[in-house]
Amino acid sequence: MTDFSPTDRSKLTRLPKRGSYDRQAVFDVLDAAMTCHIAYVIDGQPFCTPTTFWRHEDVLYWHGAFMGRMGKHLSQGAPVCVTVSHLDGLVMARSAFHHSVNFRSAMCFGTARPVSDMAEKTRALTGLIERFYPGRTEVLRPMQEPEVKGTLVVAMPIEEASAKCRADTVGDDAPDYALPIWAGVIPVQTVLGAAQPCPRLSPEISRPAHLDHLAEGARLDQAFLTAMRP
Amino acid sequence: MTDFSPTDRSKLTRLPKRGSYDRQAVFDVLDAAMTCHIAYVIDGQPFCTPTTFWRHEDVLYWHGAFMGRMGKHLSQGAPVCVTVSHLDGLVMARSAFHHSVNFRSAMCFGTARPVSDMAEKTRALTGLIERFYPGRTEVLRPMQEPEVKGTLVVAMPIEEASAKCRADTVGDDAPDYALPIWAGVIPVQTVLGAAQPCPRLSPEISRPAHLDHLAEGARLDQAFLTAMRP
Repeated sequence: MTDFSPTDRSKLTRLPKRGSYDRQAVFDVLDAAMTCHIAYVIDGQPFCTPTTFWRHEDVLYWHGAFMGRMGKHLSQGAPVCVTVSHLDGLVMARSAFHHSVNFRSAMCFGTARPVSDMAEKTRALTGLIERFYPGRTEVLRPMQEPEVKGTLVVAMPIEEASAKCRADTVGDDAPDYALPIWAGVIPVQTVLGAAQPCPRLSPEISRPAHLDHLAEGARLDQAFLTAMRP
Repeated sequence: MTDFSPTDRSKLTRLPKRGSYDRQAVFDVLDAAMTCHIAYVIDGQPFCTPTTFWRHEDVLYWHGAFMGRMGKHLSQGAPVCVTVSHLDGLVMARSAFHHSVNFRSAMCFGTARPVSDMAEKTRALTGLIERFYPGRTEVLRPMQEPEVKGTLVVAMPIEEASAKCRADTVGDDAPDYALPIWAGVIPVQTVLGAAQPCPRLSPEISRPAHLDHLAEGARLDQAFLTAMRP
């Protein structure tokens, strides 16, 4: 896989040693996530909307409502920045200045366009389920045409992207290491809890094997990465 | 506490029943988080940057580098949208259409300005540590003037804000409840792991009591909410 080529838009200006334009590094951050934050501009005003997203090759997809603010705006095609971040640890140093966090993040730039072709839309919406819950669409009640028609699906081919990561212990000023102050990293993980079946579920229906990757205690990032790359 | 007054900028357009302009509801989402995503616009191009933030009354603060992209832009004062989101659960329905997530989110609008007064800056940077680790600044090596001078601190008084939340079980179409398909919610939590002391820490220095709220297995959102509201 080749790197993304940065222009001024995606060039890392701050601590570039923590970043890269490597396609695999960007995909590793994206594919471990369920939600992203999307920045867009309406009449000079920036908006930042959190939403579920999914990736197919170099294209990011998300869905929404035609009549929502983002929907109305993006349905005309608009520049967007899609950012994904994972918080991995609290880094506590011996001075306030060197406190930090461990994290993984990716910023992706492109132009969002509505998906209007019914076949492409159905494929994209199937991808939304399959990307997180592989094997689930075939057991679900099939999608109906009004559902597909009534859902806005947005596609954004990634034009530029960068990834950034900190995965390290504390870095203090040399003289400070001798100070009698506790310093260290407290890891942060996002994990799955015990499934809560729908109260209206018949007791004969047990949890299907296609959700095994979402067992109690499993890490969300690892589960969703595995779901996409079995 | 009074509500935030929405204009077109913050008015909820999509599923407004899930949202509110209630100040307490917005603060509940913000105060349970360590990181936010900030949307801003440079020459018509939107950017979405993840960063650590903290709140004091109606003002959001974050820090950065004067020479970074966001730093250079925001140091002139600029409209921003600061969004915080928590993923709380995977909602799996009997049709693709009704799959959803449980979440809490808040969008805050305002104009970012650099904090230049040294006393206000020092107070804000102390707030950054104390808000997450109450009691920690008094044991740290004191902040030095070049550290304060060299750090960009940005303040954004919240002009408008909204909160949105879904905390519910599956909602399926009436006829679909009878289908033999597993449906339910899998909760998602962000939790703390076992502390990893700095490899250069003297073994006589034990973990201080001011980090008790960050015990292994504790929920990050609850720990940080408690840290701010003991």
